[in-house]
Amino acid sequence: MKDFEFHNPVRIFFGKDQLGKIPSQISKEDKVLILYGSGSIFRNGVYNQIKESLIDFEVIEFGGIEPNPCYETAMKAVNLIREEKVDFLLAVGGGSVIDATKFIAAAALYDGNDSWDILSKGEKITKSLPLGVVLTLPATGTEMNKNSVMTRKSTQEKLAFSSPFSYPRFSFLLPEAAASLPKRQVANGVVDAFVHVIEQYLTYPVNAPLQDRLAESILVTLIEEGPKVYANPADYDAMANLMWCAAMALNGLIQCGVPGDWSVHTIGHELTALHDIDHARTLAIVLPGLWTVLNEEKREKLLQYGERVWNITAGSEDERITKSIQKTVEFFESLGIKTRLSDYGVKQDTINKIVQRLENRGMISFGDRQLITPVVVRKVLEHQLKG
Amino acid sequence: MKDFEFHNPVRIFFGKDQLGKIPSQISKEDKVLILYGSGSIFRNGVYNQIKESLIDFEVIEFGGIEPNPCYETAMKAVNLIREEKVDFLLAVGGGSVIDATKFIAAAALYDGNDSWDILSKGEKITKSLPLGVVLTLPATGTEMNKNSVMTRKSTQEKLAFSSPFSYPRFSFLLPEAAASLPKRQVANGVVDAFVHVIEQYLTYPVNAPLQDRLAESILVTLIEEGPKVYANPADYDAMANLMWCAAMALNGLIQCGVPGDWSVHTIGHELTALHDIDHARTLAIVLPGLWTVLNEEKREKLLQYGERVWNITAGSEDERITKSIQKTVEFFESLGIKTRLSDYGVKQDTINKIVQRLENRGMISFGDRQLITPVVVRKVLEHQLKG
Repeated sequence: MKDFEFHNPVRIFFGKDQLGKIPSQISKEDKVLILYGSGSIFRNGVYNQIKESLIDFEVIEFGGIEPNPCYETAMKAVNLIREEKVDFLLAVGGGSVIDATKFIAAAALYDGNDSWDILSKGEKITKSLPLGVVLTLPATGTEMNKNSVMTRKSTQEKLAFSSPFSYPRFSFLLPEAAASLPKRQVANGVVDAFVHVIEQYLTYPVNAPLQDRLAESILVTLIEEGPKVYANPADYDAMANLMWCAAMALNGLIQCGVPGDWSVHTIGHELTALHDIDHARTLAIVLPGLWTVLNEEKREKLLQYGERVWNITAGSEDERITKSIQKTVEFFESLGIKTRLSDYGVKQDTINKIVQRLENRGMISFGDRQLITPVVVRKVLEHQLKG
Repeated sequence: MKDFEFHNPVRIFFGKDQLGKIPSQISKEDKVLILYGSGSIFRNGVYNQIKESLIDFEVIEFGGIEPNPCYETAMKAVNLIREEKVDFLLAVGGGSVIDATKFIAAAALYDGNDSWDILSKGEKITKSLPLGVVLTLPATGTEMNKNSVMTRKSTQEKLAFSSPFSYPRFSFLLPEAAASLPKRQVANGVVDAFVHVIEQYLTYPVNAPLQDRLAESILVTLIEEGPKVYANPADYDAMANLMWCAAMALNGLIQCGVPGDWSVHTIGHELTALHDIDHARTLAIVLPGLWTVLNEEKREKLLQYGERVWNITAGSEDERITKSIQKTVEFFESLGIKTRLSDYGVKQDTINKIVQRLENRGMISFGDRQLITPVVVRKVLEHQLKG
């Protein structure tokens, strides 16, 4: 096991009839800004419940945060916060609203000239407005971590930042509010959580058997519960299990003492930035290609994954690895998520552009052992271009 | 899944060469009291490392905290803290030192007449001195939770309290410092962590598949790593794995959304209070008896446990349950831990006394479904008296 530091101060409220507890989590003197997305919170009843529970608070609102949230939109919220002297941000929705709120909370108190530097130059933030979360869509795990990913439309860039100041003070996880989700978003959530686990698990062995088994526990549960939620998002128990899996997938725990890879995400972000493909779908595209190209380097963990997650024990090592990749692809496709670039109309020129963009940003060797070079990125994407 | 609230603010530092980070975790103005036990910290080098890292702090010491820490000893530390105006407590050692420090931190600021009331009457505390931990013995998980168990010699009582004010601010987990532990303490640690998981897992199904698998992950890892550490406490990797298992076993995560039982602990504490049997050994005595007596009520989870943890799939349900209990007992005994009351010289009169003491304290129905009545306690202990 590697040395590690772990700290996660987020307070989780999970289940039914939880929202009445919101007032106990925010100072009575705070002016609250509720941030949301396209307005699903009006349809699923969450908006009314929150307004009711915050009846004694001064509350204003900011809606319209889009999927793959935009810097441009976020800066409008920052301006509103400064004008209105807001004290507390309440993000209501899925990963995009929460990620945007984390950035907005940091940008509102940022002392530098241009808050885009937090993303593009990795400028460390030293403070942030406090924020809370009401989660209505299981997927990204951002409700229980310090990470955020933002997109800048004008430059087609999708970049991440992470700060201990960005932990939500609390997160309400509401499986009931997710009952009305479109199937497409449910499928995205399952695959997003799945690949989050993979990025922290399918690297190379470091004698960390508990972390391995915790990761496998989440994967197996997603394989078991994902199809149930996909078939019926109103299945409360299955949705609750998916929601807890998604939070546990990226709250830092399974990352303790083991290497992280994150190259699937790095490459996938480029596909979203250039072609607006849903985040989870970009992961489903990149992952099989990456495993195929790096099957030597990831051999030990691929074999362990095949055996423990898919019960693949027969055949040669190569056969078992091929079978493991195939089972993973079948799982994604069973949720209606295509895994070929051709399925999304992406062509060779995009691959050239992605390789060039990563090189321009100095990303010439990344992943768990810095194995992902421009050559590897090209091979991975070209493998997924076929078919 | 049941609704739940989860919050664990403890900052973990895990591994080698960590102690140099202590000064960054304590305010420079704080007067620090280092608390320890029988003096193993002088032999394993931890004392010197801590003193070196705290060279710029005003530090005093309090040693001699015993296993199953005594209220009487703790109150001496409380007096010292008041006299010396201590600001911060640093517990260095295993579960007993940490539990005592949690109680001392609470008692030092307790406004009531008698701080024993925190334990005996469940008086809620509303403040506590801040505390940090340097863990040198994997076992109880107290390094990452808000619980404490104290013993009062004069009345032979062993009682617990739990408060959000009692979370350590930080915990350094040092597998190297545990390399010189006696085998007896290693074995106790493995069994203690094992039964902590069991108390939160082997109850009744509530459709919480992730929590079940997380619990099973810890159990399987303890079965795999425990014998390695027992054979050689200086095996760093195995000790590190045990240490992280023990913390994860009782940091609240596997308890999220599922029932807890804790009747093995409740009965076990009486055996320690009356006969001074090591805590873990009392759990190893009570558990097989409890499972035998309640095999109907715990049937579903016992079968799942047998299949997933011990690969027991053949035979009738009764046969599989018998086999599962037998495998568990064999595991404990392989670590040199006896599971019969007769192994410890305990006789029928103690059973009568324990039933009476629990009744006197109003403990006439406890456990996950309040199934543990005086009749059940008697049956469980009488089952373990045989042989």
